[in-house]
Amino acid sequence: MLAAARRAFARHAYADTTIAAIADDAGVSPALVMKYYGSKERLFTQVFTFDADATALFDAPLDGLARHMVLHLLATQRGQTRDPILRIAFSRHHLELGGQARANFRTQVIDALAARLPGPGAPLRAEMAIGVLLGLGALYATVQADRLTQLDPDEVADLYVPLLQPLLCGEAPTAR
Amino acid sequence: MLAAARRAFARHAYADTTIAAIADDAGVSPALVMKYYGSKERLFTQVFTFDADATALFDAPLDGLARHMVLHLLATQRGQTRDPILRIAFSRHHLELGGQARANFRTQVIDALAARLPGPGAPLRAEMAIGVLLGLGALYATVQADRLTQLDPDEVADLYVPLLQPLLCGEAPTAR
Repeated sequence: MLAAARRAFARHAYADTTIAAIADDAGVSPALVMKYYGSKERLFTQVFTFDADATALFDAPLDGLARHMVLHLLATQRGQTRDPILRIAFSRHHLELGGQARANFRTQVIDALAARLPGPGAPLRAEMAIGVLLGLGALYATVQADRLTQLDPDEVADLYVPLLQPLLCGEAPTAR
Repeated sequence: MLAAARRAFARHAYADTTIAAIADDAGVSPALVMKYYGSKERLFTQVFTFDADATALFDAPLDGLARHMVLHLLATQRGQTRDPILRIAFSRHHLELGGQARANFRTQVIDALAARLPGPGAPLRAEMAIGVLLGLGALYATVQADRLTQLDPDEVADLYVPLLQPLLCGEAPTAR
């Protein structure tokens, strides 16, 4: 049911989405969806909660964190197209509730990463690192970039670690 | 009318979008929209054409291109929220026509940038550079990241030029 809800909210605005359509896609009755989630709004909140995905995305020691994040992102892309963070891109067409989705993202993803990072300017560097990952996810899942999608995950990691790891370790330039 | 169409296709799936709603948002009659664009599909194609935006985004000499791209992206974000490239993120909820939008993006944005870049692996580096910009656009317009959005555009450029310019000049690592 949650997978069907993710698909629905990725493809249709909140106002255009119905419990009936989600239930139909999941192969269950609307009554069952309501029994588990209670309302469309609560189902939306479940879809735009990032805690579990962030825990998996950041589950590595600091010196291997950039590589882990890239490989984890690609593994989820190539698997069930369940990118851990990219669905925030769809919050823009949920006018009514997008603000809550974005607040969850800032707290559960960006602040959680910033808390892991040493050095000055950790919150800003966490934002930039997550931005690089969002861009990589967009190249894969959305743009379907010709060259990048043909590389092995390890090759993509080799390309992205030099961009990401300095942001994580505090070697990148900080704002004036 | 085109601005209204951009808003509509950013918020609703192609199948959920109507000429009547776009005309209403633009303050014109549906007949006028049809007179200018002929069909919903042709209007969609206009929204997901990137030629003019790419020309403006890449309109700088190579040694200042990274800074120009960042400043241009931020200027359009802060202005009329008309990011030159981020609307590709919404192609995912236009199942029927998203493929055409993505093909336009790869040709008109990525290939156009690659043609400007010296050194080996230019197409791959162009993809990565556009990915970094998509991530920056997402941090601004979608996530609304707390720290980055408070900086002056020049400060954001100072942070992103070290990530972007090596990709443009061919100094970044290339795939094995």
